[in-house]
Amino acid sequence: MKAYLLHGKRDLRLEEIPDPVPAPEEVVVKVKSAGICGSDIHYFKEGRIGDYVPLNPFVPGHEFSGEVVQTGANVREIKAGMRVAVDPSQPCRFCYYCRTGHYNLCEHMKFFGSASVIPHINGAFAEYVAVPQQNCFPIPDSVGFMEAALLEPLSVAVHAVVSSGIITGKSVMITGGGTIGQLLLLAAKASGAGSTMVSEIEEYHRNVALQMGADATMNPHDLPMESGTGVNEKANFDIIFEASGAEQAINQALKLVRRGGTIVQLGFLPDKIQIPGNLIMTKELRLLGSFRYANKFDIALHMIASGKINVKPLVSQIIPFDSLVEGIELASSGKNVIKVMIES
Amino acid sequence: MKAYLLHGKRDLRLEEIPDPVPAPEEVVVKVKSAGICGSDIHYFKEGRIGDYVPLNPFVPGHEFSGEVVQTGANVREIKAGMRVAVDPSQPCRFCYYCRTGHYNLCEHMKFFGSASVIPHINGAFAEYVAVPQQNCFPIPDSVGFMEAALLEPLSVAVHAVVSSGIITGKSVMITGGGTIGQLLLLAAKASGAGSTMVSEIEEYHRNVALQMGADATMNPHDLPMESGTGVNEKANFDIIFEASGAEQAINQALKLVRRGGTIVQLGFLPDKIQIPGNLIMTKELRLLGSFRYANKFDIALHMIASGKINVKPLVSQIIPFDSLVEGIELASSGKNVIKVMIES
Amino acid sequence: MKAYLLHGKRDLRLEEIPDPVPAPEEVVVKVKSAGICGSDIHYFKEGRIGDYVPLNPFVPGHEFSGEVVQTGANVREIKAGMRVAVDPSQPCRFCYYCRTGHYNLCEHMKFFGSASVIPHINGAFAEYVAVPQQNCFPIPDSVGFMEAALLEPLSVAVHAVVSSGIITGKSVMITGGGTIGQLLLLAAKASGAGSTMVSEIEEYHRNVALQMGADATMNPHDLPMESGTGVNEKANFDIIFEASGAEQAINQALKLVRRGGTIVQLGFLPDKIQIPGNLIMTKELRLLGSFRYANKFDIALHMIASGKINVKPLVSQIIPFDSLVEGIELASSGKNVIKVMIES
Amino acid sequence: MKAYLLHGKRDLRLEEIPDPVPAPEEVVVKVKSAGICGSDIHYFKEGRIGDYVPLNPFVPGHEFSGEVVQTGANVREIKAGMRVAVDPSQPCRFCYYCRTGHYNLCEHMKFFGSASVIPHINGAFAEYVAVPQQNCFPIPDSVGFMEAALLEPLSVAVHAVVSSGIITGKSVMITGGGTIGQLLLLAAKASGAGSTMVSEIEEYHRNVALQMGADATMNPHDLPMESGTGVNEKANFDIIFEASGAEQAINQALKLVRRGGTIVQLGFLPDKIQIPGNLIMTKELRLLGSFRYANKFDIALHMIASGKINVKPLVSQIIPFDSLVEGIELASSGKNVIKVMIES
Repeated sequence: MKAYLLHGKRDLRLEEIPDPVPAPEEVVVKVKSAGICGSDIHYFKEGRIGDYVPLNPFVPGHEFSGEVVQTGANVREIKAGMRVAVDPSQPCRFCYYCRTGHYNLCEHMKFFGSASVIPHINGAFAEYVAVPQQNCFPIPDSVGFMEAALLEPLSVAVHAVVSSGIITGKSVMITGGGTIGQLLLLAAKASGAGSTMVSEIEEYHRNVALQMGADATMNPHDLPMESGTGVNEKANFDIIFEASGAEQAINQALKLVRRGGTIVQLGFLPDKIQIPGNLIMTKELRLLGSFRYANKFDIALHMIASGKINVKPLVSQIIPFDSLVEGIELASSGKNVIKVMIES
Repeated sequence: MKAYLLHGKRDLRLEEIPDPVPAPEEVVVKVKSAGICGSDIHYFKEGRIGDYVPLNPFVPGHEFSGEVVQTGANVREIKAGMRVAVDPSQPCRFCYYCRTGHYNLCEHMKFFGSASVIPHINGAFAEYVAVPQQNCFPIPDSVGFMEAALLEPLSVAVHAVVSSGIITGKSVMITGGGTIGQLLLLAAKASGAGSTMVSEIEEYHRNVALQMGADATMNPHDLPMESGTGVNEKANFDIIFEASGAEQAINQALKLVRRGGTIVQLGFLPDKIQIPGNLIMTKELRLLGSFRYANKFDIALHMIASGKINVKPLVSQIIPFDSLVEGIELASSGKNVIKVMIES
Repeated sequence: MKAYLLHGKRDLRLEEIPDPVPAPEEVVVKVKSAGICGSDIHYFKEGRIGDYVPLNPFVPGHEFSGEVVQTGANVREIKAGMRVAVDPSQPCRFCYYCRTGHYNLCEHMKFFGSASVIPHINGAFAEYVAVPQQNCFPIPDSVGFMEAALLEPLSVAVHAVVSSGIITGKSVMITGGGTIGQLLLLAAKASGAGSTMVSEIEEYHRNVALQMGADATMNPHDLPMESGTGVNEKANFDIIFEASGAEQAINQALKLVRRGGTIVQLGFLPDKIQIPGNLIMTKELRLLGSFRYANKFDIALHMIASGKINVKPLVSQIIPFDSLVEGIELASSGKNVIKVMIES
Repeated sequence: MKAYLLHGKRDLRLEEIPDPVPAPEEVVVKVKSAGICGSDIHYFKEGRIGDYVPLNPFVPGHEFSGEVVQTGANVREIKAGMRVAVDPSQPCRFCYYCRTGHYNLCEHMKFFGSASVIPHINGAFAEYVAVPQQNCFPIPDSVGFMEAALLEPLSVAVHAVVSSGIITGKSVMITGGGTIGQLLLLAAKASGAGSTMVSEIEEYHRNVALQMGADATMNPHDLPMESGTGVNEKANFDIIFEASGAEQAINQALKLVRRGGTIVQLGFLPDKIQIPGNLIMTKELRLLGSFRYANKFDIALHMIASGKINVKPLVSQIIPFDSLVEGIELASSGKNVIKVMIES
């Protein structure tokens, strides 16, 4: 089959590799739709993500859906011909995190098209992928392959919203209007958020946020950042989702969140950031990290399949499989682009 | 009566002021024991605490106990002659925080001998204090005035321990071995903590921590700080209480806490600190502020009165009322001193 | 002014009583819309509710909205002419429950038109009511008086939904399709519930539930009740809200809820009921009571004002003030009636 | 090897069966100490437990410790010669409950010496048992085999205490003074419980409770049960653990728990019980089932190994392996007996 292998920095080659053979508990999925994620861009531009350095050439891509074309000997509920979304998480199921329901933190996680402590495994930028049966989520006819491929980032957003606690009636701010920021908006509103505000530099993204149902948007550059300690300011967001990874955004969040409020950090912040440390204590804040997701694919699928949310407008460009590199360049430009989707 | 009024930086004067007159719902307490807190030291040395600048001379001191000598017209359950500990919090009872049980975050809080948004009210470094009846906690004969005065900082510790969630069997680290750090150790152990470690620079404080029951202590200077991202290190504390307010301590905490772990911030961190921002997300941490306390005096009193914990060894020096200034100087030296107590 | 006083069982008299005079912190509200609640029916038909026996004639009614016509000396934010919904709860603000944010459980609660441990206070079935300023929730022009009067039962529903925990994506069943059951459906869906089922005997109410957005309805009589222990049945509701108060309904709920699932009890169950006690342990259930509400009026108001939910179809009949008794009879008939509203 | 096989009601035979052969991930444990549990008594006296009917003769017993004598090919961390306690739970690791951290509710659970939906697997009343490596908890020299065998019921108690929420300073009542009741007392006190009360009919058990550190005990027969609705009574337990399984006990608990309080149900209640259903709502109670345990063996082991709790006094009788049937008869007598332990 044809697949894209990452050989190093800016060295992503479309090659012929052997077709995947399903293990007894696996099925083979013919990829129909695959999203380009920020981590794919990092792999392409830097050949690595932070400390995660591939040991061998591997196939990136972990947001995907497709059609089951072959099933292993012990597979029961998934059948050839089924249309499925794929959860790319393969946790060990035995470690402390797996046993306590936080398998997203599994110390031995395998993750399609990405890395953890172990060698990278091949992902979705290929014609076929072998997938454990329990990672397949059959989709109804009403859900398209493109929407199904968005279940992965939507699960990231749902995980963060659920992690924030009960959101019913809470005032919510989201910093960053990329794919994750927009999906946070949809997931927060679907979970009962009160008023919603999206803070984002790009006008294009602010307009999409309004289209997605944000009550208001703001350009973070319009806010003075150095206005006192923040304790007594008229800051009044109950929950802020920080999805930009910008040092300025987490600083702004610490000032704009109410006393006793919650900040959920999803953006990949720099290794060294400066923050007003005193506010965490004096405002008695909760600053919560949110990493990938655990047990959220079915919730995300229900949100889309039931019509509660419409994720289609977030796909700003659709690119054919053969043009993946152009798609990655486009996605990394950040201008007038939210989610770039590869279709086969 | 005699009382210490703070007129400015290093200007704390013992003066004669009018005796307090109890309002109908108040009692007058003759102060018997009063602790010197870090905030008292800040007021003495800087004439202010951060943004809290006294508008008028006022009497500091908020950790105290004493004997009821007079009762207002509507006071029912508190009688003259009773020995009481005093909760210095006087929240408004109407704002969002008061209505939701987080009165420690009350926007209109009055606090004995300290400040919030409103003018300072007189505190415990005086012969008498007028106290609302509901702020008085009668103590049994088995509890001394000195222990009773320690209920205030113990409530700070209990609030933090309760805020951290269920601590049964969790491995706990405490950074900072001052009064709050030591009380955190006692409160965490009394609440079921598994193994306990106290990180503290001063050998004197480490020894007290061992005496208080810590399983181990460490000098934070002995640890290399720049050992990678921390995600895959053998960090394994479930919960870390940061009670030092040192930038290095919160950095160490972020590295030594396990994935999915909790850091509770009690120390007063500087306005600007640098931290490894990425760890909050990649380790999916919970970083929780803990500010003063709400509804913890009765729990703290039960811990002491039942004999579950013994706080007496934390009083390193007892000073007569007339020597308060020397006591503050001593407390601020930080050498061979944990809690300095004023007795009348 | 004119007001309805309850003198005893089926003895509700429209009389002239003195106009209310506002205390310094109170306003006088001219009642425009008032709902008839199940407790009003109990008072009318039995002269009491369980142990709550009125000591003197009093004015029932606690679901209401109106216009402010007079303000006390210390009232600042509420002005004459304002249109307001009224939270009928007047907790003591000092007891354990008030201090911990659960003021709905206040031991000294005063409640408009109803009772607790103290003498009844007059409620909404009158021309005017004196109301503490903080109990007034100004409503925007887009919200009618009728919807505003429904904030009270909607707060009951929101309290139960919030009490159930995070509901995002959870499958929900509601037993009982009266006003509270229907509002639970709306509040649960607005808070992110996955699939929803309403169980109700009356076809009229089942049809309203479908109109309100329930995914399915069922007649509980169609289900066999004695089908084994329930542990291994294909029961799969994550959360069940029991709003009927019927012994059969709580029995059915215990069988149909999934292992580890949650039942929230809002209906007023009989003093003696028989249940399959073993299921609570073997299925590790959470059975949670939900009583009135605390801090939910603003959330309920936002749900209506933002257009997230539409409560208007739940008003099945509108009755003039002079016909209250006929309204109560109608409401108590249970046939083709959900909420009966009194308008002035 | 020799093993006890249950062939039916009161038909427990000591027989020769083949030695267990370890699978690649298993070890063989020579049983040194095994406790007799209430469920073993049920199996012996009734040949079944409720709906759990053995399909074939099987070896009961699930509370045990021993020495590792053989290891499978892939076993790494467990070595021959190690002294271990054994967690008898073998969940499927794939179902909803396993993925969310509640593996005690696993739909496909295998459990040593007991049953779930699948055929029974052999347990601890034998010379040897084959055990998956991850189910072995190595014990330090300071912990005896007898204490190690008590980790299983202690895990039941720890699970219930942790399920009850934060217990620091809470007033606790325990109904039932058998093994689980006494271990609940120890676990609750070790987790910070305030005052503790044990309600139990037998004087022998009440005396053991006092020896274990209960602040008070009571005979439930001394309390009048029909004293009003319970809403306004001076009931003031924050948390009640119901460990007796008696209908009267859960009734008493519903009356004696405070408003907003928590009841944790561990006892195996009858299939049909009568309770005052209205109290759940009017007091806004939390009634929580607690079933077995998940992830509690390490916590239980730390409690014992650290000396926080002493479980030894709960072993009222030690019986040799050959006298198991006499031991079961003794344990079921309920007189002057708490835990009967079999030693080899």
